[in-house]
Amino acid sequence: MRAVDLIRIKRDGGVLDPPAIREFVDGVTSGAWPDYQASAMLMAILLRGMTPEETAVLTDAMVQSGVRVTYPGLKGIPVDKHSTGGVGDKASLILAPLVAAAGAYVPMMSGRGLGHTGGTLDKLEAIPGFRTGLSLDELKAAVASIGCALIGQTSEIAPADRKLYALRDVTATVESIPLICASIMSKKIAEGIGGLVLDVKTGSGAFMKTEKDSRMLAESLVAIGRASGVRTEAMITAMDAPLGRAVGNASEVVESIETLKGRGPADLEDLSVHLSARMLIAAGVATDAADAEARIRAVLSSGAGVEKFRQIIERQGGDPGVIDDYGRLPTAPDREYVTAPATGFIVSIEAERVGRAAVALGAGRSKMDDVVDHGVGITVLAAVGDQVRAGDRVLEIQHRAGRGLEPAVTLLRDAIQIGDAAPSPRRLIVDTIDAEPFKLP
Amino acid sequence: MRAVDLIRIKRDGGVLDPPAIREFVDGVTSGAWPDYQASAMLMAILLRGMTPEETAVLTDAMVQSGVRVTYPGLKGIPVDKHSTGGVGDKASLILAPLVAAAGAYVPMMSGRGLGHTGGTLDKLEAIPGFRTGLSLDELKAAVASIGCALIGQTSEIAPADRKLYALRDVTATVESIPLICASIMSKKIAEGIGGLVLDVKTGSGAFMKTEKDSRMLAESLVAIGRASGVRTEAMITAMDAPLGRAVGNASEVVESIETLKGRGPADLEDLSVHLSARMLIAAGVATDAADAEARIRAVLSSGAGVEKFRQIIERQGGDPGVIDDYGRLPTAPDREYVTAPATGFIVSIEAERVGRAAVALGAGRSKMDDVVDHGVGITVLAAVGDQVRAGDRVLEIQHRAGRGLEPAVTLLRDAIQIGDAAPSPRRLIVDTIDAEPFKLP
Repeated sequence: MRAVDLIRIKRDGGVLDPPAIREFVDGVTSGAWPDYQASAMLMAILLRGMTPEETAVLTDAMVQSGVRVTYPGLKGIPVDKHSTGGVGDKASLILAPLVAAAGAYVPMMSGRGLGHTGGTLDKLEAIPGFRTGLSLDELKAAVASIGCALIGQTSEIAPADRKLYALRDVTATVESIPLICASIMSKKIAEGIGGLVLDVKTGSGAFMKTEKDSRMLAESLVAIGRASGVRTEAMITAMDAPLGRAVGNASEVVESIETLKGRGPADLEDLSVHLSARMLIAAGVATDAADAEARIRAVLSSGAGVEKFRQIIERQGGDPGVIDDYGRLPTAPDREYVTAPATGFIVSIEAERVGRAAVALGAGRSKMDDVVDHGVGITVLAAVGDQVRAGDRVLEIQHRAGRGLEPAVTLLRDAIQIGDAAPSPRRLIVDTIDAEPFKLP
Repeated sequence: MRAVDLIRIKRDGGVLDPPAIREFVDGVTSGAWPDYQASAMLMAILLRGMTPEETAVLTDAMVQSGVRVTYPGLKGIPVDKHSTGGVGDKASLILAPLVAAAGAYVPMMSGRGLGHTGGTLDKLEAIPGFRTGLSLDELKAAVASIGCALIGQTSEIAPADRKLYALRDVTATVESIPLICASIMSKKIAEGIGGLVLDVKTGSGAFMKTEKDSRMLAESLVAIGRASGVRTEAMITAMDAPLGRAVGNASEVVESIETLKGRGPADLEDLSVHLSARMLIAAGVATDAADAEARIRAVLSSGAGVEKFRQIIERQGGDPGVIDDYGRLPTAPDREYVTAPATGFIVSIEAERVGRAAVALGAGRSKMDDVVDHGVGITVLAAVGDQVRAGDRVLEIQHRAGRGLEPAVTLLRDAIQIGDAAPSPRRLIVDTIDAEPFKLP
């Protein structure tokens, strides 16, 4: 069928059959579909939607546009996690070593920060020498040898996604659940994993602001994973305030190492242990939640987790000395503080504003080619639920000679809300999604 | 505003303000908007629609992408007509000379046939030597000298429409009422006319199959014309069976000349007189319907209409001898007949199938670059309402050595329906649309 006829079917709200979807994806990958036809199709998909079956086939076609990694000789089920993006969300840096130390294989591919949320690769690159750009062969060798690698996307993984994403970005077709799901899941499935734990954020600082939308996204992601034979489950977790205390890059590495040493903030440790345990179950290493959590707590308290992180850093060319000497990480020279405007309880520290402030300071990107300053950031001194007096320091800003300080301070002042009564305790894990599987047509 | 932000507004069902629409059209014309952004916007427009105000601004921006012709020194209001396309619809060839002979100025720009409907330019080019590709200066000179010219689109007229149409054709974004209206009206308004009569076809052989859709299209066209200061009205006319008896190119020229000589088929003469009269009123030459119709009947019976057509042909390089000697027009050498399958009344001769049969024979185009055979065609020997016996000839096919004959015969057999009772008489002019004017924002 001609491209224009396939576009017409979706335009009129019809369902594209598997050969049609594969023709679209193959056409985009090979260039047989010019960009203007691809973008018309993307807009039709955004406005007309896709069935779960169409989305699963789209994902599979995107996987097949490139390499699906295999790990021959590996005794075990490789697992990964994916977060839809949050502020202060450094969980990947903690999960990967914990789960690998507990005996699972973790070939983890992550992204960079864009917009108000941070990116795992940017954080890792705060470690002097750390190479995230491993080849697939280096990834496989690292996983076989130390059980884990933390790398960026390679060009062999889902090339259709790269092309489509670039086009979506400039044609206002990013915000489509089927397209988002296919983009996330095609990359994860192509990694060659057998198990996947999704951390779908919900709340004011998340991509999905409401629990309903987050649940819809989570269910769709889980269904696609299962359709491709990946044991997939999703946690819906709160993203209204920053996770942990540190927001930045080097400072988040420090907080991750502290957490691996058993000295992390409670919310971050709780989430890390919970997600790690789910990954262990997906990997088939643990049999149930109690067993999984016990194994993760064991590698936390034994120091095996932090030692695994040292191995990962070493293997990927980074300076393992940072584990013991945080002074080896980049820092920003200057400090500024945001104080409580009144006496009372901290009711909220709005994650999105904090994230935007971090970007303003240089810790993130507002454009793809912005350069990240790994030393700058924000530290939460008094967290949600804490009692403060007017003038008490709530947030510390680490900045470089005032760069971006003014907008950051404005954003952070607006982010803090003080109330007369203590807020009800925060429920970090809102729900678990365990959708019904279905067959790939 | 960036292109992606404007696309997002329309994607979300918002209304684009005039500067946004002008930025889109200017961007498409200059190339500042790449095709992939333009096509995403077109799909969003198709699926989300446009308000009448947005459509009027879109049209105006498309007019302003090129030249709006003026006729300095001309004492009168130039008028034109536009038909949404039919089978056997040669009315333009009759209207232009009639209205010009009655004292109005008619700078008529027409198109070529595509799909099952014919095109005025293809018909005119059946006349040996006839040049439809006049420049705007030649157009103006011809209108000033003999009151009329029949030409094709020039590159100075609405270049944005040419770009957008090419893109719509390959991205399944043709079938959008606002886009159709802006495309039609931008070209008409840019001609520099002050009055316009629209012939919006309705029925199985028309682009709009239902009266409701045809009325919606007509109302939108009329509103746009008026917003641009053009006296615009629309007739909704039946297109279920071919108009007149001839379907083709040379054969339609013959039937047009016969009609100008007062010997045409009743349906074609009636429609031509009615539309011509409306054009005379729009031009300010006639004061009311009775006056206008009397003037048209006068130029018909005096022969002034056919003499005007002779002048037009001469002026545009054609052989005026065809007026008196139809043998100078191209013909097809071979004949075939489709007969009545039963005895009874002809209930319908489906226009679309007849049009597709004509294309199969070579009289039209299924692709833009197909070459038209001016000699081939179809003649209705027994029309709707006629009584026939089984085996009587209903349609004559003029073909060239059997080219396309087989599919044509099949289509034409399927086009004929015989019934036991005479069908109720056909109402050719279904309605007149005279929409409320509104101001261009």
